[in-house]
Amino acid sequence: MPHHPIQIEADAAAATRAGTRIADVMQAIRGRIAARSLTPGEKLPSIRALAASMQLSTSTVVEAYERLCAEGVIRSRPGSGFFVAGALAPLSMAEIGPRLDRAVDPFWVSRQALQAQDGMLTPGCGWLPPHWLPQEALRRGLRELARADGAALADYASPQGLPALRQWLARRLAERGVEASADQLLLTDSGTQAIDLVCRFLIDPGDTVLVDDPCYFNFLAVLRAHRARIVGIPHTPTGPDVEHFARAVAEHAPRLYLTNAAIHNPTGATLSPVTAHRILKIADEARLTIVEDEVFADLEADPAPRLAAFDGLQRVVQVGSFSKTLSAAARVGFVAVRRDWVEGLVDLKIATSFGSGHLSSALVLNVLRDGHYRKHVEGLRVRLARAILEVGSRLQELGIEPWLQPKAGLFLWCRLPPGTDAAALSQAALAQGIILAPGNVFSPSQSAHEFMRFNAAQSLDDRLFSFLRKALGSARGPAG
Amino acid sequence: MPHHPIQIEADAAAATRAGTRIADVMQAIRGRIAARSLTPGEKLPSIRALAASMQLSTSTVVEAYERLCAEGVIRSRPGSGFFVAGALAPLSMAEIGPRLDRAVDPFWVSRQALQAQDGMLTPGCGWLPPHWLPQEALRRGLRELARADGAALADYASPQGLPALRQWLARRLAERGVEASADQLLLTDSGTQAIDLVCRFLIDPGDTVLVDDPCYFNFLAVLRAHRARIVGIPHTPTGPDVEHFARAVAEHAPRLYLTNAAIHNPTGATLSPVTAHRILKIADEARLTIVEDEVFADLEADPAPRLAAFDGLQRVVQVGSFSKTLSAAARVGFVAVRRDWVEGLVDLKIATSFGSGHLSSALVLNVLRDGHYRKHVEGLRVRLARAILEVGSRLQELGIEPWLQPKAGLFLWCRLPPGTDAAALSQAALAQGIILAPGNVFSPSQSAHEFMRFNAAQSLDDRLFSFLRKALGSARGPAG
Repeated sequence: MPHHPIQIEADAAAATRAGTRIADVMQAIRGRIAARSLTPGEKLPSIRALAASMQLSTSTVVEAYERLCAEGVIRSRPGSGFFVAGALAPLSMAEIGPRLDRAVDPFWVSRQALQAQDGMLTPGCGWLPPHWLPQEALRRGLRELARADGAALADYASPQGLPALRQWLARRLAERGVEASADQLLLTDSGTQAIDLVCRFLIDPGDTVLVDDPCYFNFLAVLRAHRARIVGIPHTPTGPDVEHFARAVAEHAPRLYLTNAAIHNPTGATLSPVTAHRILKIADEARLTIVEDEVFADLEADPAPRLAAFDGLQRVVQVGSFSKTLSAAARVGFVAVRRDWVEGLVDLKIATSFGSGHLSSALVLNVLRDGHYRKHVEGLRVRLARAILEVGSRLQELGIEPWLQPKAGLFLWCRLPPGTDAAALSQAALAQGIILAPGNVFSPSQSAHEFMRFNAAQSLDDRLFSFLRKALGSARGPAG
Repeated sequence: MPHHPIQIEADAAAATRAGTRIADVMQAIRGRIAARSLTPGEKLPSIRALAASMQLSTSTVVEAYERLCAEGVIRSRPGSGFFVAGALAPLSMAEIGPRLDRAVDPFWVSRQALQAQDGMLTPGCGWLPPHWLPQEALRRGLRELARADGAALADYASPQGLPALRQWLARRLAERGVEASADQLLLTDSGTQAIDLVCRFLIDPGDTVLVDDPCYFNFLAVLRAHRARIVGIPHTPTGPDVEHFARAVAEHAPRLYLTNAAIHNPTGATLSPVTAHRILKIADEARLTIVEDEVFADLEADPAPRLAAFDGLQRVVQVGSFSKTLSAAARVGFVAVRRDWVEGLVDLKIATSFGSGHLSSALVLNVLRDGHYRKHVEGLRVRLARAILEVGSRLQELGIEPWLQPKAGLFLWCRLPPGTDAAALSQAALAQGIILAPGNVFSPSQSAHEFMRFNAAQSLDDRLFSFLRKALGSARGPAG
């Protein structure tokens, strides 16, 4: 039955109004989730109650809830109502912490830096420029791989990973005092995957995990994906603040402490033996597991104390990768773990990623065997030490003060001139094609808004300093 | 104060008795968990109650509980007691299902086949022998990679993955009717990682997921790692049983249906258009998401209907990889997904594995561009069709009957002679260095104990048939 034209217009107008009302309800719910007045897993207001409070019909609220379900924002449990979806929580920037704005969430640096275009500067990223890495050795390694047997080219690797590479790693760990045999090592596709695997093995949703404040931003992202409660421990130049650590352990009964071994990211701090001993003692009494990420270990000339070495891999799990000193394109990480956890981790690895990258492991092994790797990292250390000195002094000229003079590594954790907001400075930099790492992306308590992490190897370009000079001058105004 | 020797002995004896009692309590709890009379998350008996029922001191039970905590078997929640650990659940073979024994759990085939030694036969594995894969093209691809620029060798890839490879995939999906632009594609380190990522994005612990019965065993393992409730739908030669599917959707309100596109694993069945349409209609009404794994797609000459093609990637997510037809050592998988889910999946990928394997993607792209890939897969199809015929007829001679004659792929899903137990046969085979895939590793309902999956490409060795002849002869006894 055809409608009269005027009726169609009236219908269309009514439909538009209805659509607007539905959108209003959806926006209201999204807003409450973003503001955390509704948290993951929490029950939404009943349809009747919300309809009454917003002075809308129940059918409008029903339709809004159903659309939010379809979007995955909320979930319906038949018979018990609607709930804020949990699985999507890690994806929503707004939920990482109450005081985060989009510009400084933990994905800020990774998303920007991983997507940087040619010609952009990346002093905020966490890795070396590709021409600092052993490209010739990688090329030789690839040519050698091209002559490998068919199984190496085409077959799955053993679930625990290439035995010869595990043996190499076992020897390297031993040099730093960590005694792990090859059968206590598990290869992964990255250091991040190694941490993720251990989290899967140990963490239930809602468990508390301690991290350093500040800490590597992706620790916050991966823990959020596991729906852990994150508690930050203030970091000092010799490791975590022991008093705070002890209080947090007593108060929160955490399941895990996730930290760096060797060079701390972002501060460049190194653990002292006395702090290591005290932290382990507290962890031991509380039966707390520690995951120690030593991804920057090869950049150290004199190894700092390892928790895993003091502890003998009883309570400490060590993870690492070759992404920082060999190649981030090959993607090989590892876990060193007590023997009775290996089988469980291998099963979990098969369940969630099946095998491991045979080609990547074989390439890394070729480069390590090549004989030039040790020389390469020695060269890197010298080059980085020089870059740290140069960049540090150029930053100081601009009133940007390193928090400490790092013993090794690539990072300078710096306090900006008083009154400078690191997030605003980073947004201004992005508009100029410069990717910075503002302090709060690293800070679970959001207390590092005056700090900035500089990667010395990626901060040698004059354009960075001209930008900073100009931006800081104008930020401090005509009197500055 | 030195002890008197006799006192030391008495102390030692007392300590031994105490140790035994503690071990008894630990064993009792472990047994209940294995038998599922205690399930993950469930509260353990109070210390007082268990001490009374086992006629032991409370301090013995306290010590046993603490040791089980240290092992990660149970967890303590201060103030509320002890609970069966959830995170370790996926690792315990006993918990996959009530009627599984160690020999036929979902990890059986993967663990055995991935660790197979030279000279062993692997008719139970799910992949092609390395000499069936394009080794010369892989060698050329590696040599080409050795000449690539520094960033390709050493830098992280963009988070979504190599654009040129995503474009190639978009074209390939279009050939099968699935319209996905390159920006709807996300590269992963494997097809399994692709499934895992989608599960993380969509599944809350306790959500119900539908799978086919039988289904690919690692679907069971990955879903268990996400603590999903698994409901199996009987599979028919034209897809899932539609009546069962509709009932299960109504009864369990599942979050997800995880299945194969193209060639079904393990049965070799292909979806009919009418089943595809009905399944989608039910899914649509129930707002159910479907994940369609098309890992064997390139082995099809005439593509079977794709749910993702009918649906336009609204409700269906498609995943796949290059592991089966190009190389399992390179490890590249993908997800094709509705546009508004891409950002969330990319964040989750960064959080849990940081970048993706640039070298692997670049190698796969080199091989695909090489121009021989299409010819290679055409050759594979012919070779596999011949193998399916030959192996099928040799199995039939032994009374092992294919459930259907597959249109393509590598699998023959076969019913063993009456009274033959597939698990027992597989254990006997393992002792002879032959890795089989007994039916129940694929069956959530454990109803496939008379079935066996044979990989035709890996079943061309006479030793397999002599073993089967002998084993089946003796299994059926002197009258057989």
